Amino acid sequence: MPKYIAPLADVRFLINDVFDFQKHYSSIDGGSEACPETVDSILDHCAKFCETELSPLNQTGDLEGCQFNDRKVVTPKGWKEAYLQYVNDGWQGLSAPVEYGGQGLPLSLGVIKSEMIGTSNWSWGMYPGLSQGAMNTILLHGSDQQKSLYLPEMIAGRWAGTMCLTEPQCGTDLGQVKTKAVEDGFGAYDITGTKIFISSGEHDLTENIIHIVLARTPGAPKGTKGISLFVVPKVIVDDAGQLGCRNNVYCDSIEKKMGIHGSSTCVMNFDNAKGYLIGEINQGLHCMFTFMNTARIGTSIQGIGSSELAYQGSLPYAKDRMSMRALSGTKQPQKVADSLIVHPDVRRMLLTQKAFAEGGRAMLYHTAMVADKMMQAHSKGDTSGYESFDDELGFLTPILKAFLTETGCESANLGMQIYGGHGFIKEWGMEQIVRDARISTLYEGTTGVQALDLLGRKILLGKLKTFDKFTNKIKHFIKNHENKKEMKPMIKLLKTHVRQWKWSTIRIALMAKKDRDAIGGASVDYLMYSGYVVMAFFWAKMADAAYTKHKAEKGMVPFYLSKIQTAEFYFERLLPRTQSLKSVMLKGAKGLMDMDEESF
Amino acid sequence: MPKYIAPLADVRFLINDVFDFQKHYSSIDGGSEACPETVDSILDHCAKFCETELSPLNQTGDLEGCQFNDRKVVTPKGWKEAYLQYVNDGWQGLSAPVEYGGQGLPLSLGVIKSEMIGTSNWSWGMYPGLSQGAMNTILLHGSDQQKSLYLPEMIAGRWAGTMCLTEPQCGTDLGQVKTKAVEDGFGAYDITGTKIFISSGEHDLTENIIHIVLARTPGAPKGTKGISLFVVPKVIVDDAGQLGCRNNVYCDSIEKKMGIHGSSTCVMNFDNAKGYLIGEINQGLHCMFTFMNTARIGTSIQGIGSSELAYQGSLPYAKDRMSMRALSGTKQPQKVADSLIVHPDVRRMLLTQKAFAEGGRAMLYHTAMVADKMMQAHSKGDTSGYESFDDELGFLTPILKAFLTETGCESANLGMQIYGGHGFIKEWGMEQIVRDARISTLYEGTTGVQALDLLGRKILLGKLKTFDKFTNKIKHFIKNHENKKEMKPMIKLLKTHVRQWKWSTIRIALMAKKDRDAIGGASVDYLMYSGYVVMAFFWAKMADAAYTKHKAEKGMVPFYLSKIQTAEFYFERLLPRTQSLKSVMLKGAKGLMDMDEESF
Repeated sequence: MPKYIAPLADVRFLINDVFDFQKHYSSIDGGSEACPETVDSILDHCAKFCETELSPLNQTGDLEGCQFNDRKVVTPKGWKEAYLQYVNDGWQGLSAPVEYGGQGLPLSLGVIKSEMIGTSNWSWGMYPGLSQGAMNTILLHGSDQQKSLYLPEMIAGRWAGTMCLTEPQCGTDLGQVKTKAVEDGFGAYDITGTKIFISSGEHDLTENIIHIVLARTPGAPKGTKGISLFVVPKVIVDDAGQLGCRNNVYCDSIEKKMGIHGSSTCVMNFDNAKGYLIGEINQGLHCMFTFMNTARIGTSIQGIGSSELAYQGSLPYAKDRMSMRALSGTKQPQKVADSLIVHPDVRRMLLTQKAFAEGGRAMLYHTAMVADKMMQAHSKGDTSGYESFDDELGFLTPILKAFLTETGCESANLGMQIYGGHGFIKEWGMEQIVRDARISTLYEGTTGVQALDLLGRKILLGKLKTFDKFTNKIKHFIKNHENKKEMKPMIKLLKTHVRQWKWSTIRIALMAKKDRDAIGGASVDYLMYSGYVVMAFFWAKMADAAYTKHKAEKGMVPFYLSKIQTAEFYFERLLPRTQSLKSVMLKGAKGLMDMDEESF
Repeated sequence: MPKYIAPLADVRFLINDVFDFQKHYSSIDGGSEACPETVDSILDHCAKFCETELSPLNQTGDLEGCQFNDRKVVTPKGWKEAYLQYVNDGWQGLSAPVEYGGQGLPLSLGVIKSEMIGTSNWSWGMYPGLSQGAMNTILLHGSDQQKSLYLPEMIAGRWAGTMCLTEPQCGTDLGQVKTKAVEDGFGAYDITGTKIFISSGEHDLTENIIHIVLARTPGAPKGTKGISLFVVPKVIVDDAGQLGCRNNVYCDSIEKKMGIHGSSTCVMNFDNAKGYLIGEINQGLHCMFTFMNTARIGTSIQGIGSSELAYQGSLPYAKDRMSMRALSGTKQPQKVADSLIVHPDVRRMLLTQKAFAEGGRAMLYHTAMVADKMMQAHSKGDTSGYESFDDELGFLTPILKAFLTETGCESANLGMQIYGGHGFIKEWGMEQIVRDARISTLYEGTTGVQALDLLGRKILLGKLKTFDKFTNKIKHFIKNHENKKEMKPMIKLLKTHVRQWKWSTIRIALMAKKDRDAIGGASVDYLMYSGYVVMAFFWAKMADAAYTKHKAEKGMVPFYLSKIQTAEFYFERLLPRTQSLKSVMLKGAKGLMDMDEESF
C-alpha cells in the first residue's frame, strides 16, 4: 500500500496563489482566527497525523476488517488508538461553533482536513465523517436543548453520529421509508424499523453514537411528505447530559463488502427505541437535504483521494520498474531496461491521475469557499446572500460528487494498470484503492441520481439561473485573460466549451418539453460533460496562477512548470472527451426507450 | 451471484444466420463431423454442464478460494468433482486431433465451449484453459515423442498444463528472463529459477501438470534472442508414458489477489528440475507466439463473459427493484414505485452491457472462423493461405484482447451501478464480476502492450497491409448493403468511420516518422478507436441478418427486433466514443513527454 504523503505544496498553492484564502477569510466569521500561522500549523499537524497515524492503518484495516460479534463491532487493530489521538488533538471540532466547544474555524479548513484524512485512510475517516453530518443536522435543525445535550460531546469527538436513511426496500426513493415513529406520551417517540447500509452504525470508538433517523409517524402523508427526522442515541442521555439506559437500537449484522472493510456497514434494528423529533413533523426530508449536501461534498473528497493515492502509488513504481526500451531509443543504457516512465502510455496514465487529483482539489476548495460564504450569510441572517451561495453549492454538489468519484475510480484503475499483473496482487495495495473507491459512485446518491439532480432539478427546474450565474464566472475569467498570451490556447477552448455547454443545455431543455425522458437519456453524459468543463475552468485558473508565480520567481520553478504542463495535458487529452459526450447527450431518449422490457 | 443461462439463441443466431458455420465447416478438416445435429447437441450439453455444474460453484469458489499448504494447492469445494465430470464427458479434447484421442472438431466449436465455461465460472475455466495453451504449444512445436508422451493424457484432461513465462523482474519484457537451463548430458536440461504469476501452476485436479517454461541456456544471446522453451512435467513421464519420479518443481506460495480466487496463481520454484527442449534452441519466444495468440484470444473471452454475466445479473434486478416514478409519468400505478427499467439511464447501462456482450461474441466467432481457416491452411501445407489467415488473426487478436476486456470491465461496473449500494455487497455477486474481470486487462499483455502490438507491429511495421485487407472486408460489406434501405444509417456511419480510421492511421504513421513516441502516445486511444469500428462492423452484420430473418419470418419476432434495436443503440450511443478518441490519438506525444521525470 502506498505510503501517503500529504500534498502540502499543492494545498498551499491553491489557498495562497489560486484562491487567496486569506482575503476570503478576512470577510467571514472565524476567519480572523485563520491567520496564516494558524493555517500553516493546522496543515502541518494534520499532514503529520495522516502520514504517521492513519496511512499505516489503511492496508491493515482492509485485511483485518471489522469484526462483528454479539451485536458489537470491533474496528481493526490500532484504529481506536488513532481515534483517541484524533479526539485528544481536537480535530473533530476544528470548524464547529465555539459555543459548543468547537474551534470556530472556517468550514473550508475542515474540508482540507477531511481531504488529508480521507486520502490517507478513507475507511477510518468515515467514522468522524459521519459524525460531522449528524452534528450539522442537529446544529441546523435541532432545538436548543438538543444542541446543548449532544453537540458538545459530538464536537469533542467523544460521541459519534450516523445517518439512518436507507431501508431494505429503498435507498434513492426515500418516500418508501417504513420505519415507524409513535409518540410515547412523554414528548418522545418510539422508533421501530430496520435500517440498512448504516455506515458507522456500531463501533468501538466512542461511548455513544447519535443516530439521525428518518421515520414516519402514524397517519403521516404518503411518500416523501410524510417523513420526519429523529435523533436516536445509542445510550440515552438524561437532561443533565449524563449517559443513562441503553436504547433499544442494535446492530444486527455488518455487511461483507467489496471494499472499505475497516468501515462498519450495519443493519440497524430499532425496536421501540426512544427517539426525539428534530425540526418540524413531516419536514424530515427537507432537514436531511442540508445534511446531504455536506455528505455528498464529503463523498467527492473520496474521488480526489482515490486519484491522489493511486497517483502516489503508481509514480514510484513507474520510476523503479524496468521494462522494455523507449520507442525513441534507449534511455538508460546502463540498466537492463528503461523504466516504465519513459513510455508515453504510462505517462498518459500518470498525468491523467495527476490532472484529476489536482483538478478535483481545486474544484473542492472553490466549493468549500462557497460553503464558507453560505454559512456566513446564514449566521448573519442575510437571506438573499444565503440563497445565492446555497444555489451555487447545490449546482456544484452533484458535479463534484459524481464527476470526481467517477474520475477517482478511473485513476484508481489506472494505478493498477501501471503495475501490470502486480496491480492485481493485494500486497501492493493498488487493488485496495480500486475496491475502496468503487463505493464512491454508489452511496450518497449514485452517479445517475446526481445527474438527474443536476440536469433536472438544479438546471432545468431552476430555468438555468444558477447555470448562467456560474458560467458567467467562467466568462468573466475568459474576458480577463483573453489577452494574456500564454493563456490563449486554454481560453479559446474554454470559450468554445462554455458556449457549447449553454447551447446543449437549451437543446436538451427543448427536447425535454416534448419528452420528459430526454432528461434521463442525457443526464449522466451531461453531468460528465459538465464536470470536464468545470474542471477545465479550474485548470485554467491554476495555469494562470502558475504562470504568474513562474514569472515572479524568474525562472523555471519545477512546481509551477509542472502545473502548467498538467493543465496543458488536461486541455489536450482529457477535455476532448466532451466531444463524444456532447454527441451522445443530444440524441434524445427514443433509442433507449423503444425496446420492450421483454426484449432485453 | 447471477445464475448463468447460456445465451443459446444468440449463439445459434450467429453461427446460423450471421456467419453460416455449416458452409464454413464444409471447407475444413473435421468440418464434416460438425454437422448441425452434432453442433446442436454440443451446444445443449455444454450449456447444461455450465449452468448446472459450473455456475453454482462460481460464488462459493470466490468465497472459499484456493488453499495452500505444504507446497500443495487445494481448489474450492466441488471444483474437483466438476473437473472430473468435464474429463469424463470428453470436453477437453473437443477440437484436439483425433490422432491423440481428441474429437477433431473445429477450433471454433472449442471457442464456443470456452465462452460458455468462462462466463459461468471464469476461475474454474482457467485450469482447462491453461492446459489448452500448453497442448497447442506441444502440438505445434514438440517432437513426435513429446507429442505422443504428453498429448493423449492432456487431451483427455487427465493431465493439465501451464505456461511459465513471468519472473519477478519481468513480465512484458521477457528478454529479462533469468531462469537457467543447463544440459544434463542425457539429452535433457536442468531447469533452475523462479517463475511467478503461474496460473494453475499447482492444484489438485489432475495427477500431473505439464509446465511450458521459458529459460536461458548458458552462453545464449542476451535478450529475447537467447530464450528457449522447455517442457517440464511435475511428475516425470518415462518413455512408456508411465508416471515416474516427482520432478523438482514446486509451488512456493500462491498469491492473494483482488479476484479469480478459485484460480491458483503460483510462485513456482524450479530447482534443477528436468526439462525437455521444445523446438529449436533460442527459438523459445517465437514458439511462444503461437501460444500467445491462443491465450490472448482466450482472454478476450473473459471480456465477453464479464459483459454477459453482468448483464444477466443486472437485468432481473432492473425489472424487480422498485424505485421512483418514470419521468414520463407513472408506469406501474398499482406498485409502490416503478421498476428501475423504466428509467432511461438504467436502460442505457443495460443496453451498453448487452451491446458489448453480443458485439464481442460476434467478433469472437468471426475470429474463431479465421483460426479454423488458419489451422486448415497449416495442415494442408498451404503457406500463403496460412500467412494470410495468420495475419488477420494477428491483427484481430490485440483488438479483441484489449477492447473486449476493457469493455468487459465497463459492463461489470455498470452491473454494480444498476444495483446501487447493493452492488457493493458480496452477497449479490455483482462485485465479484468486477473483481474477476479486472485481471483481464492486465494478464496476457496489458491493454498498453496490446495497443503497441496493434499499432506498432501489426499495422505500421506491416505497412498497413493487413489493415487494408481487413478494412476491405468492411468496404465490401458496405458496397453490398448501401442500397438496402433499412441499413442506410448504419452503412453511412460505417463508411465515415472506415475512411477516418485509414486517414488517422496514415496521420499517425507520418507523425511516427518524425517522433517514434507518437506511436505510444496514440496507441491505447487508437486501439479503442479500432475496437469501436470493428464492433460496429459486426453490429451492422448482425443487424443485416436480423432484418433478413425478420422479413422472412413475416412479423415482429422479438429476438430479431431486439437485435436491430441493440445495433441502433450501438451506433447511436457507443460508436460516437470514437470522436473523442480520434481527437486525442492525433495529438502526438509531445504533451506526454515534455514533463521532467522529477516534476511528476
